[in-house]
Amino acid sequence: MKKFKACVMGSTGIVGQQFVRMLKGHPYFDVVALTASKKSAGKAYEEAVEWVLGGNIPENACNIIVEDVSIESLENKEVKVIFSALPSAVAKEIEAALAHEGYFIFSNASSHRLDTDVPILIPEVNSEHLDMVRHKVDRDRGFIVTNSNCSTAGLVMGLKPLLNFGIKSVFVTTYQALSGAGRHGVESLDILGNVLPYINNEEEKIENETKKIFGQLNGKHLEASDLDVNASCCRVPVKDGHLESIIVEMEEDIDEKAAVCTFSSFRGIPQHLKLPTAPEIPVILRTEENRPQPLLDKDSGTPERAKGMAVTVGRVRKKGNRLNFFLVVHNSIRGGAGTCILNAELALKKGYIR
Amino acid sequence: MKKFKACVMGSTGIVGQQFVRMLKGHPYFDVVALTASKKSAGKAYEEAVEWVLGGNIPENACNIIVEDVSIESLENKEVKVIFSALPSAVAKEIEAALAHEGYFIFSNASSHRLDTDVPILIPEVNSEHLDMVRHKVDRDRGFIVTNSNCSTAGLVMGLKPLLNFGIKSVFVTTYQALSGAGRHGVESLDILGNVLPYINNEEEKIENETKKIFGQLNGKHLEASDLDVNASCCRVPVKDGHLESIIVEMEEDIDEKAAVCTFSSFRGIPQHLKLPTAPEIPVILRTEENRPQPLLDKDSGTPERAKGMAVTVGRVRKKGNRLNFFLVVHNSIRGGAGTCILNAELALKKGYIR
Amino acid sequence: MKKFKACVMGSTGIVGQQFVRMLKGHPYFDVVALTASKKSAGKAYEEAVEWVLGGNIPENACNIIVEDVSIESLENKEVKVIFSALPSAVAKEIEAALAHEGYFIFSNASSHRLDTDVPILIPEVNSEHLDMVRHKVDRDRGFIVTNSNCSTAGLVMGLKPLLNFGIKSVFVTTYQALSGAGRHGVESLDILGNVLPYINNEEEKIENETKKIFGQLNGKHLEASDLDVNASCCRVPVKDGHLESIIVEMEEDIDEKAAVCTFSSFRGIPQHLKLPTAPEIPVILRTEENRPQPLLDKDSGTPERAKGMAVTVGRVRKKGNRLNFFLVVHNSIRGGAGTCILNAELALKKGYIR
Amino acid sequence: MKKFKACVMGSTGIVGQQFVRMLKGHPYFDVVALTASKKSAGKAYEEAVEWVLGGNIPENACNIIVEDVSIESLENKEVKVIFSALPSAVAKEIEAALAHEGYFIFSNASSHRLDTDVPILIPEVNSEHLDMVRHKVDRDRGFIVTNSNCSTAGLVMGLKPLLNFGIKSVFVTTYQALSGAGRHGVESLDILGNVLPYINNEEEKIENETKKIFGQLNGKHLEASDLDVNASCCRVPVKDGHLESIIVEMEEDIDEKAAVCTFSSFRGIPQHLKLPTAPEIPVILRTEENRPQPLLDKDSGTPERAKGMAVTVGRVRKKGNRLNFFLVVHNSIRGGAGTCILNAELALKKGYIR
Repeated sequence: MKKFKACVMGSTGIVGQQFVRMLKGHPYFDVVALTASKKSAGKAYEEAVEWVLGGNIPENACNIIVEDVSIESLENKEVKVIFSALPSAVAKEIEAALAHEGYFIFSNASSHRLDTDVPILIPEVNSEHLDMVRHKVDRDRGFIVTNSNCSTAGLVMGLKPLLNFGIKSVFVTTYQALSGAGRHGVESLDILGNVLPYINNEEEKIENETKKIFGQLNGKHLEASDLDVNASCCRVPVKDGHLESIIVEMEEDIDEKAAVCTFSSFRGIPQHLKLPTAPEIPVILRTEENRPQPLLDKDSGTPERAKGMAVTVGRVRKKGNRLNFFLVVHNSIRGGAGTCILNAELALKKGYIR
Repeated sequence: MKKFKACVMGSTGIVGQQFVRMLKGHPYFDVVALTASKKSAGKAYEEAVEWVLGGNIPENACNIIVEDVSIESLENKEVKVIFSALPSAVAKEIEAALAHEGYFIFSNASSHRLDTDVPILIPEVNSEHLDMVRHKVDRDRGFIVTNSNCSTAGLVMGLKPLLNFGIKSVFVTTYQALSGAGRHGVESLDILGNVLPYINNEEEKIENETKKIFGQLNGKHLEASDLDVNASCCRVPVKDGHLESIIVEMEEDIDEKAAVCTFSSFRGIPQHLKLPTAPEIPVILRTEENRPQPLLDKDSGTPERAKGMAVTVGRVRKKGNRLNFFLVVHNSIRGGAGTCILNAELALKKGYIR
Repeated sequence: MKKFKACVMGSTGIVGQQFVRMLKGHPYFDVVALTASKKSAGKAYEEAVEWVLGGNIPENACNIIVEDVSIESLENKEVKVIFSALPSAVAKEIEAALAHEGYFIFSNASSHRLDTDVPILIPEVNSEHLDMVRHKVDRDRGFIVTNSNCSTAGLVMGLKPLLNFGIKSVFVTTYQALSGAGRHGVESLDILGNVLPYINNEEEKIENETKKIFGQLNGKHLEASDLDVNASCCRVPVKDGHLESIIVEMEEDIDEKAAVCTFSSFRGIPQHLKLPTAPEIPVILRTEENRPQPLLDKDSGTPERAKGMAVTVGRVRKKGNRLNFFLVVHNSIRGGAGTCILNAELALKKGYIR
Repeated sequence: MKKFKACVMGSTGIVGQQFVRMLKGHPYFDVVALTASKKSAGKAYEEAVEWVLGGNIPENACNIIVEDVSIESLENKEVKVIFSALPSAVAKEIEAALAHEGYFIFSNASSHRLDTDVPILIPEVNSEHLDMVRHKVDRDRGFIVTNSNCSTAGLVMGLKPLLNFGIKSVFVTTYQALSGAGRHGVESLDILGNVLPYINNEEEKIENETKKIFGQLNGKHLEASDLDVNASCCRVPVKDGHLESIIVEMEEDIDEKAAVCTFSSFRGIPQHLKLPTAPEIPVILRTEENRPQPLLDKDSGTPERAKGMAVTVGRVRKKGNRLNFFLVVHNSIRGGAGTCILNAELALKKGYIR
């Protein structure tokens, strides 16, 4: 199979590094270009990056010369697919321009998530939304496909198996890891031995993105769900892995065993298609009374390429027509680079990357 | 004014230490006796205790010889009032026996909280429940008055101002400090850089105790409230101060400004009686977008004697008939020793300690 | 006694806040002016500062309008004494200019510490060095007196009692708190569950400042000591309080008991003069096997005004002619604002502030 | 090549788990038996263990039934090689008895380390000490080979390359990780935001073991080195990986470049023999100004099987005839199970396991 040449934009941040790490040896995509801010441009990647992921920088990336974004350079390198970890502030214009030039963009930035012609795609949850890009591809144009906010990614994975039972309201309270704020996001004096009950814009993102992801696609038009979602978000002194406390109010009384089963038996399109980055079991159910924990469960997912792509659910408790549970999601893998890569794999399988 | 002689039981644990610290120089009570487990008995308090509260051990306590519980000794020392920080397992029998002997017991233990003739008292919230002990005192008998679980103490203080607006459902998710688990409660390898989504029995306690505290007293009989309470509890790497994320579903739409005002204008009986350990402002409203925080707000409360007795509320957000907010409560002061002392002060003022 | 009017420069940083807190109600000095960077100028102090010290902002400071540095304003307010918490980069010029204009400057900045006509003053250790400023005062000029680097302050307090026994070499390895790096010094992702074995310039400062502090004053000329000092410095995830592991190689064998006694019996000039900010016992000796600890010992010192001004020594172990011990010093009090205030108190007592 | 059957004793603790993890798929040894305390006996390993190493329990171990120690069972299973992670208190007798019965024991326990006929073996440093067991093997008897204390393992790896330059004195100050204290070693309230300046017996172990490791073997007799070693030890809130600050006083002035080179060019016997668990580069030299860090460097070592077996050295600074540097060692791999496995590999290669 022919590989498509790919560029990682914003390659030196945490999500950018995850793209580089996860795309090493990828069967569909070959990273040939890396971009970063002007002060890094011109340096070899191994010089430009302050690698924080543990292990070594993938060898294929070490010597790539980091560039500022340039269409000319992308053309010279025959790049077709772009993985974007750009900061939202700069992503808006650049991604729009590149999509217009015909590139296929899989973005972690929030800037286009609520655009009417851009899907927020979590393939296990709403793979059909990807069809929003068909008419663009059919006209030889590029497109943008976004992932969701990191907390939302976990939430919708946890809710999807329950959807058929009828959900009335969702209450989610988060315990979010430091790496979700980026390399320089939280000062140690603020968070050591403390919890910060505020993350800029996070609660709005969770509420709006969840509604869009659970929306109905009618032709090109996506109608957002009117699901009642209520989010409260905190930062905790944890490095990686968001924990979420979730209460789901069901339309009617639900059998507890059925609910529990539905989590562990859940499989989505990526599992059926055996996409390379798809976890074999997307929602892992733990039955110990003190799980899931960020430290122990953030990296769950098999095979090796899907480490961090499964979400872990535990402490499922039913009271009347309410279901309480906790969930852990790796914020920069399932909630970041990993889902974008999975999105690209699905797009390729569906023939939207040509 | 004549002071009553007092004993602190379980004086070497965290809540026991808070009793000793807070009762130093108290205008009503004079600590003359301290008890602890057998292995400490016979030692001076300063030898027996591993002091963890910062500052020095109060001088009046340093040289008190710690004893095992004994009615003979209590009689010799003319003790009338007992502050109990006993572990629940041993508290059940000992407290019952001592109440039967005529002692006035203000307990932090959970063993008698759900007894039908024992009030769970948070004086700002349900001071009238104290009248449950009148018929006992009138027959020259002793009594037990308990405080609530530490998280519940914060929750009901936060809910009380809203009660008149009509509350339908309450959803609380906690971020609980390590000291709430006691001196030896959580191992460092489990919690460093992690969150533990399980605290034994805590969710049940919050739900049951809240209903009892908001119950109606009819003569000697207390009818629990049928308030709908839903709790999810986690331990976080914070030393002192529980943070709670609270959602209140009101009977009907509520004016946001009115709700906000109702927090800061709230005063209870202890404030009107100017009890020594009562905070001037029991519910402190912070308007900064990133407050309350455990580290910055746990010790709130004036005057000095009431440090840690105020709860702090912030990030009040209204959506339809729901009110979301965060709250910080000092777990071993307002949620422990402090409320027991306030309870004793109220009992004395009401003439139940004679 | 007439109070001198004082200005705190750099009043919004951590050491600046300590100045404001510790000078509240001071018997000699009255804070009437506060400066900060241009973006804060014009605001009331309570608006300009992000208060991190716990408790409330002192009332006398709340409404002072923060200014940019200006001699005209200092004159208008009749300021004589300046406490400087300026960043070293800007302190160099401003402090020199103000001293030239006749102001008495007590500075926490490192910029002038190694100037030949400026003492690094730790009053318990080298009070006689203050006489370096006499000839300036006698000519109606101002002066600069600096404190030492925060780790050095602890080290020289610990070494001073041993000096008469004859010290050959000193090896110090530090465990430094986050607040020593300032409000925005260390990112949480770098330090959570980690140790950083590098603090810019710290080892050089400790070595050079210690030699100067232990130097000999001959008239106006100060000859640095040739003491052999070896420092290695790390940052640890601790909020306040530097721990130091110290090995002192003595000229000859030393009696262990004598060495231990010499710590606890040590008193300096500030103790004899009963200066307001002097701790009654400047070096506190702990005999428990697991002390001193930053969390438990950082605030040691009595009376209240001297909290954090004592250093705590423990685990004194002798092997041949070597003495090993650990020491805790509060980095922003004894190692920051507190020593500067003590320096000003001494200068006033000695008649150098007129 | 025929594999030897092996048993891991004390298999449920942290070092026991590392043995199980690192022996998975080992080319020389096949784990067929696991022991643990009586309360675990009879359970499958996956039931008995609280797995803390991340990832999954190796499949080959999951279903092994954990036993109490029994020679009969070892015989039935044809075990020859024992890896012991027993607590020192029980190791003394059991290990002696098993060695007497002919078993080859590679132990992490400290109980026999200072026995005159037992080597403390770090193969890169003193592989020749292994010959102490020859006369036992030649008489068909078993033997005990110990690793060193975890901090010592790092220290001697860092010192070995410098040994030829002539070392006079060594000063080491440690920043030790929590996992070094075992699964239940340190309570969170003691260490969160704190440093504990005491680890029971650790300083004596470092001093005595280092002298034995650098000792001279004359026939069966080992003469300890008289190297002057001075250790001070602290526990820090870090999960894995001990950081050590080391000062080496050389016999004479040393060329800085030569010293630096000697670290990175160092190779030992395990490297020449290409033992399976030997890291290709045993001492990794980092030149960044802020390395080594426990979090980033604890797992260093290639190939995969040798992860955590290399020590990392950095911040090499020379002053006169002193060399200062920092070092990170993974406490439960190089300082625990890993070195025992390397010891067994060496013993097999040398023909002492038959």
